[in-house]
Parts: sequence; C-alpha cells; structure tokens
Amino acid sequence: MSERKVFRSLIDPEEAWKIFTSQIKTNIAETEAVGIYNALNRVLADDLFSPISVPPFDRVLMDGYAVNSKEIETAMENNGIRLKVIGGIKAGHVFDGVALPGTCVEVSTGSPMPLGYDSVVMVEYTEVKGDEVEIYRPTSPSENIMSAGSDIRRGQLILRARTTLTPRDLAIVASLGMETVTVLRKPKIGVFSSGDEVVELGAELGPGKIYDINATMIQASVLENGGDPYYLGIIPDTYEEINSHLSEVLGKYDLIIISGGTSAGMGDMLYKVIEDIGNPGLLVHGLKVKPGKPTILGSCNGTPIIGLPGNPASALSIMHLLVLRYIRTLAGLAPLPPDAEVSAIVKQKIRSPPGRHEFKPVNLIRINGETVAFPVPGGSGAITSIGLADGFVQIPEGVAFISPGEEYSIRLLSSKIHLVDLQIIGEYDVLFNRILQEFTHMYPIYRVRFVSTSSAGGKASLKRGECHFATIASFDNPPDSVIFGYKRSFGILFREGLGISTLQDAVRYRMINYPLGTSLRAMTDSYLTPDVDGYNNITKTVYSALELILQNRADFCFGLERDAIEGIEFLPLDKQIFSIVSTDDSSEPVLAFKDFLTNYDLPSRIERGYHI
Amino acid sequence: MSERKVFRSLIDPEEAWKIFTSQIKTNIAETEAVGIYNALNRVLADDLFSPISVPPFDRVLMDGYAVNSKEIETAMENNGIRLKVIGGIKAGHVFDGVALPGTCVEVSTGSPMPLGYDSVVMVEYTEVKGDEVEIYRPTSPSENIMSAGSDIRRGQLILRARTTLTPRDLAIVASLGMETVTVLRKPKIGVFSSGDEVVELGAELGPGKIYDINATMIQASVLENGGDPYYLGIIPDTYEEINSHLSEVLGKYDLIIISGGTSAGMGDMLYKVIEDIGNPGLLVHGLKVKPGKPTILGSCNGTPIIGLPGNPASALSIMHLLVLRYIRTLAGLAPLPPDAEVSAIVKQKIRSPPGRHEFKPVNLIRINGETVAFPVPGGSGAITSIGLADGFVQIPEGVAFISPGEEYSIRLLSSKIHLVDLQIIGEYDVLFNRILQEFTHMYPIYRVRFVSTSSAGGKASLKRGECHFATIASFDNPPDSVIFGYKRSFGILFREGLGISTLQDAVRYRMINYPLGTSLRAMTDSYLTPDVDGYNNITKTVYSALELILQNRADFCFGLERDAIEGIEFLPLDKQIFSIVSTDDSSEPVLAFKDFLTNYDLPSRIERGYHI
Repeated sequence: MSERKVFRSLIDPEEAWKIFTSQIKTNIAETEAVGIYNALNRVLADDLFSPISVPPFDRVLMDGYAVNSKEIETAMENNGIRLKVIGGIKAGHVFDGVALPGTCVEVSTGSPMPLGYDSVVMVEYTEVKGDEVEIYRPTSPSENIMSAGSDIRRGQLILRARTTLTPRDLAIVASLGMETVTVLRKPKIGVFSSGDEVVELGAELGPGKIYDINATMIQASVLENGGDPYYLGIIPDTYEEINSHLSEVLGKYDLIIISGGTSAGMGDMLYKVIEDIGNPGLLVHGLKVKPGKPTILGSCNGTPIIGLPGNPASALSIMHLLVLRYIRTLAGLAPLPPDAEVSAIVKQKIRSPPGRHEFKPVNLIRINGETVAFPVPGGSGAITSIGLADGFVQIPEGVAFISPGEEYSIRLLSSKIHLVDLQIIGEYDVLFNRILQEFTHMYPIYRVRFVSTSSAGGKASLKRGECHFATIASFDNPPDSVIFGYKRSFGILFREGLGISTLQDAVRYRMINYPLGTSLRAMTDSYLTPDVDGYNNITKTVYSALELILQNRADFCFGLERDAIEGIEFLPLDKQIFSIVSTDDSSEPVLAFKDFLTNYDLPSRIERGYHI
Repeated sequence: MSERKVFRSLIDPEEAWKIFTSQIKTNIAETEAVGIYNALNRVLADDLFSPISVPPFDRVLMDGYAVNSKEIETAMENNGIRLKVIGGIKAGHVFDGVALPGTCVEVSTGSPMPLGYDSVVMVEYTEVKGDEVEIYRPTSPSENIMSAGSDIRRGQLILRARTTLTPRDLAIVASLGMETVTVLRKPKIGVFSSGDEVVELGAELGPGKIYDINATMIQASVLENGGDPYYLGIIPDTYEEINSHLSEVLGKYDLIIISGGTSAGMGDMLYKVIEDIGNPGLLVHGLKVKPGKPTILGSCNGTPIIGLPGNPASALSIMHLLVLRYIRTLAGLAPLPPDAEVSAIVKQKIRSPPGRHEFKPVNLIRINGETVAFPVPGGSGAITSIGLADGFVQIPEGVAFISPGEEYSIRLLSSKIHLVDLQIIGEYDVLFNRILQEFTHMYPIYRVRFVSTSSAGGKASLKRGECHFATIASFDNPPDSVIFGYKRSFGILFREGLGISTLQDAVRYRMINYPLGTSLRAMTDSYLTPDVDGYNNITKTVYSALELILQNRADFCFGLERDAIEGIEFLPLDKQIFSIVSTDDSSEPVLAFKDFLTNYDLPSRIERGYHI
C-alpha cells in the first residue's frame, strides 16, 4: 500500500496514437466467406469483379410487342400498321417461334427479347384486332430494350476492396447470383476487467464490491464499431495474476483491453507486467487528457494491449479517443463512424483545466430550431450521467474555457444517437414520473428524457434553453408560465420504530442534511437550526440519506411522503407545490405534452388514482 | 396475357400510410429477455427500476486517509496534525478495525469508507512519519466520499420503456448487476420474391432468367432497421401458387413483403389473392409516387402484406417511403433513423413529371467545403446505379423541377452512409482501375468511388462540381488541367475467326454502334458512314456490344484493345489519350491522389508492367 504510482511524462493523445500504431499491426490479413444474408456492414476483402453480365439477355423494358422497326416505319395515329401476333412471352420464359416478316410477339416487362425482332412498341400505342395488332407509332432499333451486359459486363469491377457493405451493395452482389461474399475477418478483442472490488454481473454483491460496468460498456462499443468482443473475466489485483492471465491470452486476440486497475496500485502492476513480458512492452504510460490520464498503451509479442482507467467515464473517453479508432482501423472501417460529429450551440461557459485535452460529456437537444449542447448534469463520476451523454465536446490543451452562445463540433458517442424530442430537467417526483410514463405510452414515437437535478437546476436549465420543460418544487406560489402543478406532502422521514411524532421528537436524533441551493435544504433550514446533531452531514439526495438511515448511520432527514421506502416512516409537516414549467418552443412534441398536461383531466385523476 | 392491369385511383403516400396503419397493428406486445451482451440496439420493453443502490456503499473518491474531520479542524501547512495509521484498505476489501480517537485508515480510490470516520484527506496533503501520518489540511464532513445511493437509489427509474439501448445504457444496466434485459421482440418479416424469371442465388441462370436481387436488398434493409428477416422463397406467377404460399404463412409473421410481380399480370393476381382472402384484404392499390407506383398494401386475417414492384430501384424507394417506417414503428424505434437526412446543394436542374411524388436517387460528395448532391448516373433501371446511391432527393407532387445551386434535404439510404473521399467520374479504363487499386492499397483510409459514364459525362460532372477528378479519352490533345495521362490502343473488336485485318474487311460484317455523345461513337463516326450494316443498332457500352457479338447477333464494334475478352480479337487503328483531370479542391485525399499520380513513377511502370 505504501508504493504510490508515479506517471512518466504525460503524452498528447495524437502523439500516443502515432507511437502506438507505429509499433503494432493496423490491419487484418485474414478473410472469410460469409453468406450474403450475413454480410451487412461487413468489409469487402478484395475488389469484386463480375462473373456474368447483367442483364444476361436483352431485356424488354415495357409491356408491348416485339417488332422489327423497319416494318412499322410509317405507323401513325391515323395510319395503323397491322402485324400478326405469333405468340406471347412472359418474363422468365423464352420465345421459341420464328420471326417471319409481318409478325410480332407480345412481350412484358422483364421478358427476354425474342430473336429476330429489334425493338418493342409500348402496348399504349397498339390495339388488338383478332389475331393481329394494329400499331400507331414507329420504333427505333433497340427501343425499350436493355441490352445484355449494359448494366454490368462480365469481368467488370463491381465493388472496391474495403467497401462496407450496404443493402444496395448486397443487391449488386445478388444480381451476380453470388451466395457468399469474402470479407475481412472481424478483429477479435479480448476484454479483461481488473480490481478486487469488481464482481461479475449476476453474482452476489459482497461488502465493498461493485458490479463490472466497464466490461459491458467496452464490449458493446467494440460491437458497434466492427469488432468481435470476447469477455475474459476479472483479474485480481496482483502481479502474478495479471502476468499469468495476460500471458495466457497473448496471440489469441488482435487487441487486449484491460480496464479498471490503472489509477491506483494496480496500474503499477499492469505496466510492470507489460514491461516484463516486453517485445516491445510499454509504449505509452499516461495521457495528457481529462478524463483518462492513467491510460497504458503497450504491445507484448505482437499483441497490442490497452489499459483503461477504472472510472467508467474515463474509460469511455479513451475508448472514443483511441481504442475505437484502432478497432475501426483494424476492421477496415473509416477511423470515425460516418455521422461522428454534429454542430451545436453551447449555452454554458465550460471551463477546462490547463495542460490537458478535455473530453466533456454533453447532452444534445433541438430547441427553438437550434441544436444545443451542455454538460451532462451530475458530474463525470456518476454512471447515470454517462447514460445521459449524447456526445463529447473537446476542449484542446491550452484553451481555458469555451464560450456560451458559440457553435462547436460535438463528437457523438454512437452512430445511433437519436436526439430526444422532449427534454425535462429539474426536481424528481414519483407522481410526475408516472405522468411521463402515461404520456410516453400515449405518444410512443416521442423520445422523452428526464434529467433529475433540483428545482434550482431546472430553473437555470430552462433559462439557458437546455430543456423544453422544467420541474420545480416550491412552498409559496408556483412559478410563472406554469403549465400544470399539484401539491405533495413534505416532512420528516425516519427509521421505522423511532416513534417520531413531532419536530421536537426528531431533533433528539441524528439527522442527514442536503447541499445548499436545493429545495430540500431550504425546507430543512426553515425548520431547524445548525445545532442539530448531524446538521453538517451532507448527502446529495433523499435516496442516499435513506440508505444511511437504513444502515443506522443516521436517524432522520427531510423529504417527501412518496420517497418513503420499506423500513422508513413519515411525519407530514407541510405541502409543497410541484410545478411543470415550459419554454416557448412550439415543436410538435412540446405542444403534445402541453396538451396532455392540460386536457387529460389529470387533476381529478391525481385525486382519485394517483394518491398524492 | 390479354388481361392488362388497371390501377385504381393512385393514392398519395402519406394518405396510404394512414389507411394502412389504421387497419393493422403498429406495435409488438411480446417481449423477450436477452443477455446484456446481446442487447445492443435492442428496444427496452418496460421502464427499468433499480433493484439496488449505486454505489452500494460510501465510496472513497481519492487515494488518502479516512479521518474524523473534527480531529483535524486546525490542520495547516505549517501545523500538521498527526494521527495513528491503524490499517489500510484497498478497493474491494472491508476495514474491520475499530475507529478509536486519534487514528486514521489508509484508503484508495474505490475503497468502501471505514465505519467511524467521516471524510478523506487526499494523500497529497499528508506525510508518513513511521506508523503515523501528518496531515496539513482540514476536511469537511463527507469530503471525497460518494454516498451510498447518490448515483442511483434503490427503486429509482433508470431507463424509460422504448429506449434503444446504447453501450452507455448497457453500462447502467451492468451497474445494477443485471445479466439480462427485457426487450421488445423484433418484428418478424417474411420476404417472398415472385416471378417466373427470378431464380435463387447460386442456382444456374437458365435462358430468360435473372437472379433474385430484391430478396437480398429487402432483407438487409429489414435487418438494418430492427427487424428479423425470413426468406420465404420465390413464388411462381399463378393465382394458385400465390394463394397457397401466402395462406400458408399468414399469422406466422408480423409483415409479409412480396416483391417482383406487381407491375405486369402478376400484380393482378396478388391483389386478387389479397382481396379473396380478405379480412379486410386490399387497402391500397397504386401510389402516386415515382418510382414505385405499382405498390399494394393489404392485410389478411391480421397479417399485413406489402406488394413491392419488381424493379429494384422502385422496390428500394417504397422500402424507404413506407416499409421501413412501418418496421421501425413495429420495432419500437423512431420512424426514421437518427441520421436520416443531410442538407446538400443540388448542382443540376432535376425535372420531375407532374402528378407524382418523385424519389430521385442521388450521389453525395464533399467538395470545396460543400456537400453536393446529384442524380446517380446510369438511370434508375440499372442495378449499378442503385449501388452508387447515397440518398434520395424528394420532389413533391406538383413541383416541376428543383433548381441548381439550392440546398435541399437529402434522405439518406442508411445510417451508415459514409461520404466518399474521392469521387471520379468519366471514361472507364482497365489500366486506370489498376492505378486506383494501387492507390487504395497505399491509402486504405480513403473511400474512392469511380463512376463509369463517358468522357463527355466526366467533363460535364467536373464542370458542375460533382466529382474531384474526371477521366477523359481524346484523340487530339489532352484536356487542360490534366494531371496524368497515357495512350491506349483503339480499333475494331470482332468475333474470333472472322479474319478481319483491315477496316475494309470489317464493313462487310454487321456492326454494333454506340449512342451519340460518347467518345466511342465519335471514333466510330470518324471511320464509318451510316450505310454500314448495323450502324443504327445502338448499345450503350462496349461490354454489351461484345455480348451481342459473342451471341452471334452482330460481328464487330469499335473499342479498346484491353476490352477484348475471350472469343474476341482486336484490330488496332489508332491511339487514344486517356487523361485524368482534377478540380481545384484541396482536401487531403485529393492532394494525396495528385501526389500519387505524379510522384510514383507511373509512366515507366505503365511501360513495364501495366502493358498498354
């Protein structure tokens, strides 16, 4: 425990990319044949030349009659020329009659052109007369015929090597009758987690343990970027374990990612193992980025190894900065997904520490005709704020802040990012959540995101134009421009059995308090003075306060009746007003939600079924 | 053969959507549990509430010492306070000692907070002195601790129903320890082809037959939009076959798509079968769109059925207009993919026929800092031009044309569309293709697209700013701004054994000619007069001419030595100059290709290995 980690000189990420990729392979030579139905989004291995011509025969393009143009040269509206119809062929069949002078053959779209005729007159310019047809327009040679090979000729280059196969590309492959296509093998990515505190999903969560978040996030990102992820398990925090686990898998994967142990003592061990195995060993140790500084890049006996920080937000940032770029390169894909960037207006000043390239996770919304970006509420440590992130704004080293009101390029986290239709920020409320559930069931096409911050946070977000609606709790009057509101019971939450029935009872116990600026803190301060035991024990939310109370580490806190969970009792003190406030944005989803809030008889339904 | 198809009144596509979706189910009620590693991009079935709190314990955020803040209230830089270190805990372990006054515990990032202490002082503000540590800064209660449940509380709503799961969402699910997640079942889409001319991939291509293109294109598009495609085979063109095949699969799929038989007689049969099965039967017959008019929408005994035109471009347009929208709705996805539209400048006037909503397939490129769209060369009938398409420009009914130089919204064909880095349009040349192959192997990160039109087409595209380079063949001087050029042999291509050794020999045989405006036609006209047999038999390309010659339907044509294939001989007449001409665009890929053309000693390599 006493040897603390020292970072070598931190390296700029672009420089790190160059060092790393100059020492390792950047493509996969092996190919594989896959069925055409499994080839979507795979990368074509070689230039594809056509073995046949398309169409393979002269193809009729219109319903009508195959004729010899010379014989109907003088055909006019008022001077029809009659030809004998000696047969008819549908698509897929072949005419085996003989093209005698004065004859024609009925044909339809897709039929092969009968031999001996040179053009097709459209059915619109003809009239059937017994076993003859009268024709009112002349044709020119080859009219309404697609010549054999005019779309694709035998031997023609059809698709270029390294094409990422779309449904249209596969349609072309199908037109050649090919059932399989040869593609690059997907890169095999081995994914380890590490750390004594990490346990596998589904296992019991012992004391001091957390579930393995990174392995899931990394594997899904690998999948999304053309790699084949393999989960290799969790490595305990010792040199021997790391050494033996790593040695065992070298040569079996195109890249090994180990996440979780690089910030504390563990990081020392991973880099020592990589150095000790060597050939060449450690390449980069520490990046000039935030978050993600404790990143390790190395290669042992031909297998590239990347050590990611354990913090999920840091791991995510390095995945997007370096790891996915490498996997995409290996896979033969463009280094960035096609839709990797959008332009958005930043509404808050975002500060950045000097000397590091910063990746700041942001939310994106469309509001008042603009695309707006702002830092995800909650800070980068929280797993929930990673879930909220749509993209990153990048603040280069040496830039102290980015200014509000300007447009920046936002790097998206997925090519499947779909901006939400309704963004609502502010105070959380259980009943409001049920209202949202009901709305989303009524309007399933709208994407709704609620970001739980605080009443003050909701107000500020609304003012900056970062949400379509805010939720605000207050004790006096509801705010202006309120769309809908209701009352909720506020008071003291305490551990079952304490028998608290007045405020005076409560102050004999240990409390838990909230941060300044929250409505819970304001309410608390209106009832209590700072001399109550535990007044300075601050926790961020009612939920963490209740956990502490259940763990017997405190006895009571202030909160709402509906926050009470099993093992918690409630003493009502007052009613709060919970309000939903809107912007002027008049997009369809905003109007639909306003309509829903005001026209669906919510007040009486809240009275009846929603039990405030 | 005599009963021709009559369309009922054509219906506007938006109206058709309403009629269709008002009669059929628009969501899938069934759900399924999938492993978290298979849940990427699946749609969450229900609101997900957390069964645990995250973090599940008070989590240390910094390496340092757990202390009681009261005991170090007076700590300062020059007034260290000493505490006895009674233990150390790493992440994943639990401290089981007793917090006596005057003590502290060494902790690292991720450790659970030892009971009895209230804050963590960072290691940077401490110094080890034997078995004690000297502390130079005070802490406040809860400092450097993330409270249990402060990220996610037990019972909290974590993800909303109908969330399309990203790697970040899955990270949140993992943080709860869940190994599986309940998602909507994917819609099962049955795909039939129809038509006597259509044969399965891999089968032998008999006379008059073509391979099944649509089944592949449709299935890949279904897959790309959240559906599970099932290939049901090819139905022959009779009422009985359609009736029995369709009846057999009703109720087994969420949607049945039949492509291929709706334009000619077959369409009559499909709509009759749908009407005869009924309940309710036919809903829409014929759309006011181009291409794609002969579309059928219906529903039989609760199973929706869509009949698509056989022409792949028409089928593709209806897929994007209606079918994928329906599949996405069923799948619980947003009706359009997130990145469905881009804005681009149209450089050509595009005319549209009156009375129909037109979907015009376009190419997109980035050039001189703009995104430019233009109709794919080759026309909508060619399968190769479908392969070239990046998107559609939509021209509403009643709009006669769209003007060059204006910005339009382009609907992309895939969410994976990656604009090419280099677009080259013009005359095809086998040697130039090898040059391109070599370039793309040297610069694998660049996407290169060559569009084969003609010399005149290349010149016009370059002038309109629709390509980065054009390829032009000429007999006199090379064009201005030529970057690189070489000579190629031009002359007469004829069927083996004809013994043609002079132009005079050739004109005794039947020729095949080319369209006006092509360099091949210009060359032909400089040698021959219109009285040669076959002069008016026009085909679009040398490749189709050679097919006709091999089939004994003509004897000779003009062309290049390197176009000769097995069974074809060549008589040289002259040399052509093949030139590569560039724009002023100075993007990296353009500069790289210019550099490649001029600096890699191509001329002498062409002399040696590339045998002109």
